[in-house]
Amino acid sequence: MNDKTAYLHTYVSVDCAVYGFDGQSLNLLLVERTGNSGGAPDLKLPGSIIMNHEDTDQAAGRVLSELTGVGKIKLRQFRCYSSVERLADPQDVRWLESEYGPKVDRLITVAYIALTRIDRRINDVPKYKSARWCPLEQIGRMPFDHNRIADESLGEIRDWAATEPAVMFDLLPRKFTEAQLRRLYEAVHGRRYDVRNFHKKLVSMDYVVPTDQWQKGVAHRAARYYRFDRVLYRNRRVSL
Amino acid sequence: MNDKTAYLHTYVSVDCAVYGFDGQSLNLLLVERTGNSGGAPDLKLPGSIIMNHEDTDQAAGRVLSELTGVGKIKLRQFRCYSSVERLADPQDVRWLESEYGPKVDRLITVAYIALTRIDRRINDVPKYKSARWCPLEQIGRMPFDHNRIADESLGEIRDWAATEPAVMFDLLPRKFTEAQLRRLYEAVHGRRYDVRNFHKKLVSMDYVVPTDQWQKGVAHRAARYYRFDRVLYRNRRVSL
Repeated sequence: MNDKTAYLHTYVSVDCAVYGFDGQSLNLLLVERTGNSGGAPDLKLPGSIIMNHEDTDQAAGRVLSELTGVGKIKLRQFRCYSSVERLADPQDVRWLESEYGPKVDRLITVAYIALTRIDRRINDVPKYKSARWCPLEQIGRMPFDHNRIADESLGEIRDWAATEPAVMFDLLPRKFTEAQLRRLYEAVHGRRYDVRNFHKKLVSMDYVVPTDQWQKGVAHRAARYYRFDRVLYRNRRVSL
Repeated sequence: MNDKTAYLHTYVSVDCAVYGFDGQSLNLLLVERTGNSGGAPDLKLPGSIIMNHEDTDQAAGRVLSELTGVGKIKLRQFRCYSSVERLADPQDVRWLESEYGPKVDRLITVAYIALTRIDRRINDVPKYKSARWCPLEQIGRMPFDHNRIADESLGEIRDWAATEPAVMFDLLPRKFTEAQLRRLYEAVHGRRYDVRNFHKKLVSMDYVVPTDQWQKGVAHRAARYYRFDRVLYRNRRVSL
């Protein structure tokens, strides 16, 4: 308790699990870090150490707007990761020091989730070699504890959608078919939905309304497009 | 981006919103900080800067076990508070420096919630003049952003109870009356429940079971005691 040397300076970063949905799989927006020597491409969650003048919400907003050019993507803070083992890999420490300069003893990170349409334009950011969408099932070993953050962020989407079902529609195009919505639910919840049962679920969502447009040029029977109606959604919430 | 001086060392702390229920009001366990000059008693949430060897979960567990002597109270991390304005008050900076020694430029905190029975024994901790339960409606101005953390922690209990109703019963004695349970729901949700409607709600919770014991020595009509059945609760969850 009174050993004052035991309280160390720490660096604080943010990392963002940015989700897109490609019609089949959930994807995470990953960046390839520069300054890494040889081997397989070294993908990680986009992030940054927080700067002196900003809080973690602002730092996460900055990371996202650098990548997407969009200032207004909804971000949800979900957990602070602070294990003393985060910097166990010397390669991660070397990269941090080449990127941020000062000697880093301890780095804790605050993790955020954002849900967005996968066709959003992604900017080149000088800090990274590249940024790209990667389906969850193809993500390899990432540096730091980014695999754990990615895994736990998926559970966080489920909790978020349980109290705020509207967030699911941030992942879909403006018009979507019933099959697309079902596959999104399957990807988020990690289970299969029976087609008939899912149709009942769809009917119960009275804020998902059919349009008069249908798929064109598809090999199978053309499906109707639906859209998410934000006004009906809000009214539904008021009536709860 | 490349101004390396803009990435500062930061101190990281934890603060705990420890809730108890006195039968009428929700209470927070507050501590009176030492080393503060004159004026009204200076109450704050219990907390600590994290030590070199621990993560934030461990630091929060240490703070709680110092206060309660109990190692195993469930803690829920809910948010990192990192505004640059947290250290705006010079009195807070002086207190931090007397408590932790080094010059503190920036302090971010990770906030936790714990729910416990209010009759739990609270230890004297040398770091504080005193520790005591304080009803929410009697909490005055606290240092740092502790009022904001306290306010937002109440919303977090609501979210927690929405996905995990069992947590409400951590706040109640082993045997409780329907009126006690109703008052707890009223305190958490900040609204009144009609007695009849609440009774229907109680009946729908099939994991809250009546005992064959009744209140004794009360001026009004004696009420029956209920208890929370963890096994029935778990089975209910499986059937969801």
